Amino acid sequence: MTLEAEDPRVVRNRRAVHRAALELLGREGVSGLSVDRLAEVSGVSRSTIYRHWSDLPTLIVAAFDEAVHDRPDRPEPTGDLTVDLLAYLRDYAARLNDPTYAAVTIAILEWSWRDPEFAATRARTFDDSRSRAAVLLRAAKANGEIGAGVDVPQGVEDLVAPFLYRRLVLRRTISERDVRTLHERLLGSWSP
Amino acid sequence: MTLEAEDPRVVRNRRAVHRAALELLGREGVSGLSVDRLAEVSGVSRSTIYRHWSDLPTLIVAAFDEAVHDRPDRPEPTGDLTVDLLAYLRDYAARLNDPTYAAVTIAILEWSWRDPEFAATRARTFDDSRSRAAVLLRAAKANGEIGAGVDVPQGVEDLVAPFLYRRLVLRRTISERDVRTLHERLLGSWSP
Repeated sequence: MTLEAEDPRVVRNRRAVHRAALELLGREGVSGLSVDRLAEVSGVSRSTIYRHWSDLPTLIVAAFDEAVHDRPDRPEPTGDLTVDLLAYLRDYAARLNDPTYAAVTIAILEWSWRDPEFAATRARTFDDSRSRAAVLLRAAKANGEIGAGVDVPQGVEDLVAPFLYRRLVLRRTISERDVRTLHERLLGSWSP
Repeated sequence: MTLEAEDPRVVRNRRAVHRAALELLGREGVSGLSVDRLAEVSGVSRSTIYRHWSDLPTLIVAAFDEAVHDRPDRPEPTGDLTVDLLAYLRDYAARLNDPTYAAVTIAILEWSWRDPEFAATRARTFDDSRSRAAVLLRAAKANGEIGAGVDVPQGVEDLVAPFLYRRLVLRRTISERDVRTLHERLLGSWSP
């Protein structure tokens, strides 16, 4: 993100290419990604794509990061764990319930297992998502809302693993009831 | 499985083709699977593969089921939850730590998201693995080793989700310490 205003056409093209990249990856997997297909789906010319986005791993990282972080409805933390944890779990469930997001997450995990260059991407993406949860937990520990003995990486796992399993392995949609149940379980297990 | 003795050559060919299928799927993903490549890697002739194993989703289900269930060192349940849960978690960790098994699991999840025919495969495979954990939990509930209020599907999730997340998302190897820690946590949370 720069402070200078960007050329609106550049922004428009980037959004179109990012959207096309996630759509193709979600629908057809890694083998569906190519500059030709990106041009076809995005409507941006092949030469423009070659000039700016021909490095496909970098493109996917940027597109996925944007999908994770640039959500206009993403809640701001209030400093109250009960409220913030519920908001986090709802936001996380909404992302996973989006079929494209879920398919892209799976495609990224699969790609990471077969491509060391791409594994770096995955690490970065997952570190980013994890750190939001980790920040929440560290803040709650600091102000005594959760026990001093709670291990932050373990807490992050307890927070993200259940929905990932339910959505990506069992392919179930995460319901508001699932969100409420996990919220209650986590607060119970972390209580000081 | 039939009670008649199978032609040893048929058994040998099937093992070779199954092994080749998992190797290709783990190494190259779904796009790496073809009868030609299977013949090349397994040493079994293309015509034999076409005759018996040309339906690739069915082949992958059979090969994966065999890898999950035909483990010679798989422990038999003793009826004591503390012992059986530890054995289950160790066996599960050993499977996930095998790079081919992990890569094949991921490839199967990814394939399932893009192919309804293949999703049926996944459901069957995961129901099978889940039922071993579910059987363990139901037996322990019946003889009072775990609380009557423990929900079996939730217990199965608590049992399998943490290692799946750690191995497939974080790409960490599951250690004996991880096994012991989860074992202790689960017994604690399920105690009557």
